[in-house]
Amino acid sequence: MTDTVEEKLAALGLTLPTAPTPIGNYRRGVIRGGLGGLSGQFPLQDGRMLYPGVVGRDLTVEEGRLAARAAALNVLAQLRELLGGFDRLEGLHHVAGFIAGAPDLTEHAGVLNGASDLFVAVLDERGAHSRSAMGVLSLPMRAAVELVVTFTTR
Amino acid sequence: MTDTVEEKLAALGLTLPTAPTPIGNYRRGVIRGGLGGLSGQFPLQDGRMLYPGVVGRDLTVEEGRLAARAAALNVLAQLRELLGGFDRLEGLHHVAGFIAGAPDLTEHAGVLNGASDLFVAVLDERGAHSRSAMGVLSLPMRAAVELVVTFTTR
Amino acid sequence: MTDTVEEKLAALGLTLPTAPTPIGNYRRGVIRGGLGGLSGQFPLQDGRMLYPGVVGRDLTVEEGRLAARAAALNVLAQLRELLGGFDRLEGLHHVAGFIAGAPDLTEHAGVLNGASDLFVAVLDERGAHSRSAMGVLSLPMRAAVELVVTFTTR
Repeated sequence: MTDTVEEKLAALGLTLPTAPTPIGNYRRGVIRGGLGGLSGQFPLQDGRMLYPGVVGRDLTVEEGRLAARAAALNVLAQLRELLGGFDRLEGLHHVAGFIAGAPDLTEHAGVLNGASDLFVAVLDERGAHSRSAMGVLSLPMRAAVELVVTFTTR
Repeated sequence: MTDTVEEKLAALGLTLPTAPTPIGNYRRGVIRGGLGGLSGQFPLQDGRMLYPGVVGRDLTVEEGRLAARAAALNVLAQLRELLGGFDRLEGLHHVAGFIAGAPDLTEHAGVLNGASDLFVAVLDERGAHSRSAMGVLSLPMRAAVELVVTFTTR
Repeated sequence: MTDTVEEKLAALGLTLPTAPTPIGNYRRGVIRGGLGGLSGQFPLQDGRMLYPGVVGRDLTVEEGRLAARAAALNVLAQLRELLGGFDRLEGLHHVAGFIAGAPDLTEHAGVLNGASDLFVAVLDERGAHSRSAMGVLSLPMRAAVELVVTFTTR
């Protein structure tokens, strides 16, 4: 028997937030030809930005990791909203993680594992993804992390 | 009757620029298996960079928005060049918008709507896209905005 | 007669490094539906970061170019590892090049040509790619360049 994504989240003490509404003239995601692209997801919960600021200046790496996990929950919420659940998800493809970080930040991997660990924990093999990590100067709404995720459908 | 892309641009008082030539050993775009990727597009017009500089320091958000719109015109020009018109365009997929911004920039969405609004206005449903927004330290040729666009063909 | 990728590398005095192991809970690459995404690749060689630092501050543009070439060798090494050689590679799709650069960096193209020139030299037509270039504040492990590459398989 396979646990569902939401049962696995519950076992981790997590629930999916309401998928945030795009804050501009774009869609939460687009699927064409079996390839999906989600709009950038942030550590938003109920319209509030969790852990705003800069990792390595305002935030510790651990807080950055929690911010990445919160953004990953929104990735899952958007997938559920777009696909009407998780059955049509073939798998994740790439996770680009942009971190608002101090100039001397080197622990990008530690921050983004907050997202990667969650994807793998709740999506199993379908959560396997390639990843990239960049430290940027600023993100919308003072977010600490933005995740840009591609996926495929079946 | 469906207006063409260029008629819609004309109604907005806009014309497509000549598609800029890549400034390195790469292509303006690559299409494989129905998925297209364009090289990053900048606010170039006739070889001149419009609105060079940093949004929130050298440029207002409104100037950033105009820079994004100018870059979006080059996206359309490259699509026309690559596809020999717009008939083969199934639709946009993702628009990643990189903004050269001040460290405290928060209005990324306002800048990038200059691109998103144009895509939706002239491509209708085919202009629907997912989007991500990042504030970076520098862009080639002192550009204020770079758009990295994926699309699908039919 | 077609030279192989590795013969062409040898003719340039280059050999493929061992493909670096992901430094987090993610895969070196994911292929779904014929589209492949590689994790971000760095100028690593035998576990050592070549040319660490910031282009335009700690490094010249020429050193940045060599860093980009070293990262490109890892892209090729990952492709060989993932695909069991290069025969299944249809071609590159997009190369996003993130450069840890000084605020006033403008020569992104000169840096990334270190990667683009190598791809075209050893993969011929299959090495043709679209490209984007961004100057960021920081990269993992003090890397000067990160390459995020998509490709298609046959």
